Amino acid sequence: MTTTKKLADLVIDITYKDFPKEAVRKGKECILDTLGCILAGCKSAEGTIMLEYAEEIGGKEEASIIGFGRKTNSHIAALVNGTLGHSLDFDDAQDSLMGHPSTVILPAVLALGEKLKSSGESILEAFIVGFEVACKIGKAVNPELYKNGWHSTNAVGVLGATAATAKLSGFESTRVAVALGIAASLSGGLRANFGTMTKPFHAGKAAENAVVATRLAASDFTASDQILEAKNGFCATFSGKYDLSKVVNGFADPLEIISPGVRLKPYPSCLETHSVIEATLSIVEKYDIQPDNVESVECRIAPLALNILIHQNPQNHLQGKFSAQYAVATALIYRKASLHQFTDGAVRNPDVQSIIKKTSVFADPEMEQAMQSAVVTIKLLDGREYTKRVDITTGHPQKPMFLDNIIDKYKNCAALTINEDNIERSINEVLDFETIRNLDRLMSLIGGR
Amino acid sequence: MTTTKKLADLVIDITYKDFPKEAVRKGKECILDTLGCILAGCKSAEGTIMLEYAEEIGGKEEASIIGFGRKTNSHIAALVNGTLGHSLDFDDAQDSLMGHPSTVILPAVLALGEKLKSSGESILEAFIVGFEVACKIGKAVNPELYKNGWHSTNAVGVLGATAATAKLSGFESTRVAVALGIAASLSGGLRANFGTMTKPFHAGKAAENAVVATRLAASDFTASDQILEAKNGFCATFSGKYDLSKVVNGFADPLEIISPGVRLKPYPSCLETHSVIEATLSIVEKYDIQPDNVESVECRIAPLALNILIHQNPQNHLQGKFSAQYAVATALIYRKASLHQFTDGAVRNPDVQSIIKKTSVFADPEMEQAMQSAVVTIKLLDGREYTKRVDITTGHPQKPMFLDNIIDKYKNCAALTINEDNIERSINEVLDFETIRNLDRLMSLIGGR
Repeated sequence: MTTTKKLADLVIDITYKDFPKEAVRKGKECILDTLGCILAGCKSAEGTIMLEYAEEIGGKEEASIIGFGRKTNSHIAALVNGTLGHSLDFDDAQDSLMGHPSTVILPAVLALGEKLKSSGESILEAFIVGFEVACKIGKAVNPELYKNGWHSTNAVGVLGATAATAKLSGFESTRVAVALGIAASLSGGLRANFGTMTKPFHAGKAAENAVVATRLAASDFTASDQILEAKNGFCATFSGKYDLSKVVNGFADPLEIISPGVRLKPYPSCLETHSVIEATLSIVEKYDIQPDNVESVECRIAPLALNILIHQNPQNHLQGKFSAQYAVATALIYRKASLHQFTDGAVRNPDVQSIIKKTSVFADPEMEQAMQSAVVTIKLLDGREYTKRVDITTGHPQKPMFLDNIIDKYKNCAALTINEDNIERSINEVLDFETIRNLDRLMSLIGGR
Repeated sequence: MTTTKKLADLVIDITYKDFPKEAVRKGKECILDTLGCILAGCKSAEGTIMLEYAEEIGGKEEASIIGFGRKTNSHIAALVNGTLGHSLDFDDAQDSLMGHPSTVILPAVLALGEKLKSSGESILEAFIVGFEVACKIGKAVNPELYKNGWHSTNAVGVLGATAATAKLSGFESTRVAVALGIAASLSGGLRANFGTMTKPFHAGKAAENAVVATRLAASDFTASDQILEAKNGFCATFSGKYDLSKVVNGFADPLEIISPGVRLKPYPSCLETHSVIEATLSIVEKYDIQPDNVESVECRIAPLALNILIHQNPQNHLQGKFSAQYAVATALIYRKASLHQFTDGAVRNPDVQSIIKKTSVFADPEMEQAMQSAVVTIKLLDGREYTKRVDITTGHPQKPMFLDNIIDKYKNCAALTINEDNIERSINEVLDFETIRNLDRLMSLIGGR
């Protein structure tokens, strides 16, 4: 049997009852975390543009644009919510996928689930299945797909999201395979667009395309039913160097959401800045470092990390997200790196700019395999010198965020857009997600009409 | 200056007044031919599904779904019309692009032009510029892009269509570059989906994505403004083996629509069947061959052509489009290969099936470079034997279809969907396209409300 058909069978066969409790718990954490990112994303410039676009083109009102009090068709709702969820670079990431699973898969299943009046259990089921498919395909085609220039969040994410929406639609196996065939022809997303609004748009488009592919497959639209293994199919064309067996072997055993797990972000910035922030914070807090007493800071990171953190002299919040210098400065000046530190004003603060000028960042070839590690050394005017190395940061599966932290993050994000009462009630709703009858109440709390 | 910016400047600088008369004439022929293909495509199964889909999701009524008497937003109108135009594989093709330019670019400029109330001259201007951009980029990235598995119609076509919609929107150069950056991240289309409904869908999606990219660029959405040459950009990721100079060198000098020119199809089937049809017809008509007198037919084609004409024993119209055996049979039995011969009934006719069984098709290694050539030998029961080789078929730029043929083709296609009066009036409208004030009258003739 071909890989695509095997995968389609696996998607059909697995059900909510098969999931370990840990997977359900993690699934709900990802949902809460992603909804927070979406609600915070409503305040982004690209969020505003996407809403205007959605309103301009119109559409049947069947699914919510979260946080904006608007409804549109499930396709555009998935697009807007997916873009919002990735706009702050604050949403979860996963190592097999080499990208961001939840901000693609969740908007797709929420939009379709709201339209279909699906239960929380079936939405959670579809979400976890889609998450598994995205990560297993990611494992099969990466790192080559990513190296070839593709943003895996879109290129692979759309297949995971399609598996999820096909599952939610109750498709039989052959139709799942066709939906994947359609979706693969809509896949794309170039890394050259990193650092622009088109990066979060990749997430939204993948969510939308999953809904489109599923909709067409439902009407007997035709496509290759062996898109993963076909000669001019997905794996050959996007990756070229892949292992089809990784798509199906060990499917859901363990679930990728459990191992290697998912990374929830404590800071709304590039993953490669996190160790810099935590190493600096560690020194600053332990020795109560006063910025006025800092002579200089040295920061060593992996060569590839330096290749990503390209802003040596950041002047706005987007540049701050991709700057090791600002990671040092925010930890030193503000002693935190939350949403409030990723504003243009926070980055331009003269005290911050002073630390940025005193901070030198080097690529350390010995750290080549330590993509997310950092060694920070702070020299003080009074002669003291402290060094801290951090390899595993908060949010890594080996150092996961606790539910309390996730809830706090959600509260901070959601507070930008909805009121306190709705925040509290929506947290309870998501923590009991499997008992939800349909999405109406949750959507009224976080952004339905 | 970078290639993308140079290209954007060229797109801005060229105007209708710069075009030779021949380009305008060919542009109008492509428009008439493509509109015919769209009107015939309304009767396809995928046409019906696309209309249902468009009606289900709804949208602001600002552009026509041709042939269906419906309006929707310009995005979905471009999607549906583009899919319709390619559904019969009857639309024009172009050698530099290695794909189908008009069925992507025209639906995009018509949908946006109808929304903007653009003049015929400005729509024709945008169409010819988009055609030029698609073909020049195609020249730069092919054949590698095509060999890598991409359907160039979508993968490159979306950039041509975006140049066209950006031109029609009156963008300044920097905004054209950004629109191309957004569009490139929406590019895709896998060849593994050839022979399915997803193939024409590629054309529609490219048209839609051009409208989307242009709409977002108009609102200061950001993207790489050097997407063609960037490290993880379009050419590197999709092609890998490309020549950026071909994008801009010789831009519009000559226009690609003039040289190497455009191929209009006289038969609604794969381009590789055309020489088989014409070689067989030539013998049949010259010697008045009666099917009952045929002992056997031998057909030699290029190895790659045999790789494309995979249906040895076709049983339906879609298989018939990709069958050398059916190309022989339709010429022998019906003495033509028009729309009426590409129905399931025409393919299943026992006389046709009898000829199919008597026909052998071989790959001739000596014809390796003769992708669209064929040598047909008919042996008769009375001992006579005739052979004919055809290299250049009707519609090739060296043997172009005359305007009368193009009009006849349009009439045959359009008659499936609109009445005779509207057919005549729409022909006149398109032949005077540059004098059109706005698209309202044309759209009312071919499928507005």
